[in-house]
Amino acid sequence: MFESAELGHKVDKATWKKQVPALREALLDAQYDLMENAGFPVIILIGGVDGAGRSETVNLLNEWMDPRFIETHGMGEPTDEERQRPRMWRFWRALPRKGRIGMFFGSWYTQPLLRRVYGESDDADLDQAMEDAVRFERMLTDEGALILKFWLHLSKKKQKVRLTDLEKDPKTRWRVSERDWRHYKLYDKFVVVCERAIRHTSTANAPWLIVEGEDEYYRSLTVGKTILQAIRQRLAHPPAASAITAPPLIAPIDNLHILKSLDLGQKLDKKTYNVQLEEYQGRLNLLTRHKKYKDRSVVAVFEGNDAAGKGSAIRRITQALDARFYHVAPIAAPTEEERAQPYMWRFWRHLPKRARLQIFDRSWYGRVLVERVEGYCSQADWMRAYGEINDFEDQLVRHGVILVKFWLSISKEEQLERFKAREQTPFKRFKITEEDWRNRDKWALYEQAVCDMVDRTSTEIAPWTLVEANDKSFARIKVLRTLCERIEAGLG
Amino acid sequence: MFESAELGHKVDKATWKKQVPALREALLDAQYDLMENAGFPVIILIGGVDGAGRSETVNLLNEWMDPRFIETHGMGEPTDEERQRPRMWRFWRALPRKGRIGMFFGSWYTQPLLRRVYGESDDADLDQAMEDAVRFERMLTDEGALILKFWLHLSKKKQKVRLTDLEKDPKTRWRVSERDWRHYKLYDKFVVVCERAIRHTSTANAPWLIVEGEDEYYRSLTVGKTILQAIRQRLAHPPAASAITAPPLIAPIDNLHILKSLDLGQKLDKKTYNVQLEEYQGRLNLLTRHKKYKDRSVVAVFEGNDAAGKGSAIRRITQALDARFYHVAPIAAPTEEERAQPYMWRFWRHLPKRARLQIFDRSWYGRVLVERVEGYCSQADWMRAYGEINDFEDQLVRHGVILVKFWLSISKEEQLERFKAREQTPFKRFKITEEDWRNRDKWALYEQAVCDMVDRTSTEIAPWTLVEANDKSFARIKVLRTLCERIEAGLG
Repeated sequence: MFESAELGHKVDKATWKKQVPALREALLDAQYDLMENAGFPVIILIGGVDGAGRSETVNLLNEWMDPRFIETHGMGEPTDEERQRPRMWRFWRALPRKGRIGMFFGSWYTQPLLRRVYGESDDADLDQAMEDAVRFERMLTDEGALILKFWLHLSKKKQKVRLTDLEKDPKTRWRVSERDWRHYKLYDKFVVVCERAIRHTSTANAPWLIVEGEDEYYRSLTVGKTILQAIRQRLAHPPAASAITAPPLIAPIDNLHILKSLDLGQKLDKKTYNVQLEEYQGRLNLLTRHKKYKDRSVVAVFEGNDAAGKGSAIRRITQALDARFYHVAPIAAPTEEERAQPYMWRFWRHLPKRARLQIFDRSWYGRVLVERVEGYCSQADWMRAYGEINDFEDQLVRHGVILVKFWLSISKEEQLERFKAREQTPFKRFKITEEDWRNRDKWALYEQAVCDMVDRTSTEIAPWTLVEANDKSFARIKVLRTLCERIEAGLG
Repeated sequence: MFESAELGHKVDKATWKKQVPALREALLDAQYDLMENAGFPVIILIGGVDGAGRSETVNLLNEWMDPRFIETHGMGEPTDEERQRPRMWRFWRALPRKGRIGMFFGSWYTQPLLRRVYGESDDADLDQAMEDAVRFERMLTDEGALILKFWLHLSKKKQKVRLTDLEKDPKTRWRVSERDWRHYKLYDKFVVVCERAIRHTSTANAPWLIVEGEDEYYRSLTVGKTILQAIRQRLAHPPAASAITAPPLIAPIDNLHILKSLDLGQKLDKKTYNVQLEEYQGRLNLLTRHKKYKDRSVVAVFEGNDAAGKGSAIRRITQALDARFYHVAPIAAPTEEERAQPYMWRFWRHLPKRARLQIFDRSWYGRVLVERVEGYCSQADWMRAYGEINDFEDQLVRHGVILVKFWLSISKEEQLERFKAREQTPFKRFKITEEDWRNRDKWALYEQAVCDMVDRTSTEIAPWTLVEANDKSFARIKVLRTLCERIEAGLG
């Protein structure tokens, strides 16, 4: 895999001197066009072996282009805020917005590779991390990002020469650390591990680009020209709306579906309700003071028909809790900064730190519900959302987040009653809009979307709880009980 | 000061039961109106002595209103990301946006008060922190925020009774910690310190509201009604555009001003430039690897006439540095999320962590330059900006940030030459817009604004460096040399 990068590629000084001015100008020009276009971000990864010129390349690119519009991230040890969230959180928060360039020196590959080389993890762990990387990059390119992954290579012999040279020169001595020599000793192992990783993660949408690192001129011109060409090509040929036409999802011809299987007539009398409300609120409160709870966090998702009672169910939860330790994120239309990022970005930014309960009042499921039905995104977009959502939730659960998802279901008749009642109550007028009435006309389409959502995202690690919500008391208790049970199970 | 809060205020249960439903409804209604109006945020501080019902109050308000639109912050120990920035950074990042309610349980008062009580600081330190608080709140209310600072009080005797009661009940025992009893022993000292602080920080725009904490009904109704009234009053009577008409600033009648005192004819020949460029870039690079540097950070601000060469001066700096350790923030029009926050919010969010150099290409000075001249803000707004800016920079410097500010100055003739040249160069076309030509027509107004800016914000801790920039070589070297010297001085 590295054969072509050990051939001794070279560019002579005359060629370098001749080509650099035009390349710089063209890169700068491409960068400004990218910014004006603002249709996609460019994500550049600079990986490779020590001494192959990674930091020189990062610095040079910042020199050649306009550094004001490049965000360079040297990803070192995670901060404590980062450690409290799933591994990928720190990369999500560092993503460049559309029109900008983000350069990662140290990326989502670094830690998994080093841990494997140091023997702190096994092949299965590495493969899992690489699968995470593939899915992450797939999501990014589906969202339009241009990803350029450079791997700067150096043979073992050349690495030794390079480190020795750097050490000899007083001006560059500081750049060679003990860590570099330790890595040198692990060279063979490192190359085997990296080859495995590169093989797994060199995809059509985000291939690795291996560049021989020894000769500075060759390396720099190659990287620079590749970036230029990639940006130019993308600007000239914006990706067509996904060519993939997904096969139609199953629409049951017998008209039987999961929502119909719910017994919406279930009720709870006032007395039982009051007793159980106190019981479960007390239990929930105790759970959040459980000693194991302080290392965990809870994410509770609320979706449901309009007027199904999400808000009031949420309040029965928050009433039981100390307000310092929960947060409710009401999900409405994305802001301008959110629109300049991948769809899932605005949910990542709300992930709670340890010992916190985060409630999403509507959520990432918007894409497969309202956006699907109203045509706010393409079929390809909402079809891929199922996979992205499962991936996201998998990352949460693997990090130790207790994830609970509720769909509050009411009948069409019950909704009508509630809409009318809302229009009568002054302080609820806020809750009923023209849009609610319009959504109601598409009842059947929403029903189909909900069934598909449940079928495709109710997983063992993150099952949906369907809540029969025609009776508010019944619904609230079911929500509270489920939440308690899920947290209890999670704490073990 | 606490006399009225030790009278034994009480509300009987019947009154409570009668009044609460209407109050809740009215609060909810006010909250929705606030959201629809979206003209200002509401910032509620809940302070006071232990056992006076602070957390109960926070929880109750979240119960009475819609918790989805309240952000409650229990400010504990700062995280490592927070410790690397000035003290107020964590509060800036927690500010609610317009239309929302932010509730702080633990605020900018907590740490300074506790440190004083514990004897870790003296009165002067406390006074300084209180002055910081006053300025911060002044800025917030000038930006339109409604601030409600509640102080829940309890006499020493009542505090003891309360803590003992809580401890006796198995359901509430967990809430009394050793820390509470330690505080109880410090009660007298605590009250003296707090009284001093409250006295200093009870301003007309953000007065403290002292509430007797013993009786739950009295306390809750009082806080709830006060919030309701305050929101209602503000919605009904939006603050008039500042009634204060600032006296006109001095416009020198002899037409002599600081920019005219610059010798723009200064030049550097190519050879000297190349030698010095290498010298200063090397020196700068070494400085960022100085062992004292790793606990500091640098903020460099670039302002200047259009086409004065800010971008190219910045690049001479970044060329010398490792791209992982600097970041350039180009300041353009604020985003939607930024517009929903106080003016300075978008600069706070870019503050660097330790061992980083942050360059602002244009900056917070926009308000006293372009916004003043173009009338994008009122005179009252840009007049108060001088003070807010000095305060901001003072906080940076006190935190150990090395702050360097450059004004790049060119003559009107030189600007014309450069505009024309830019229009001719394809990859610079991006840099010249209609707006640049329009700004040029207001040359004299900008000149006046710059002079006022320098007069009012060139302080001992954060002086302006005026850079004669008709000759690019001269300007770049002056910038690099100044930056080196300031960092050297800062590192001691």
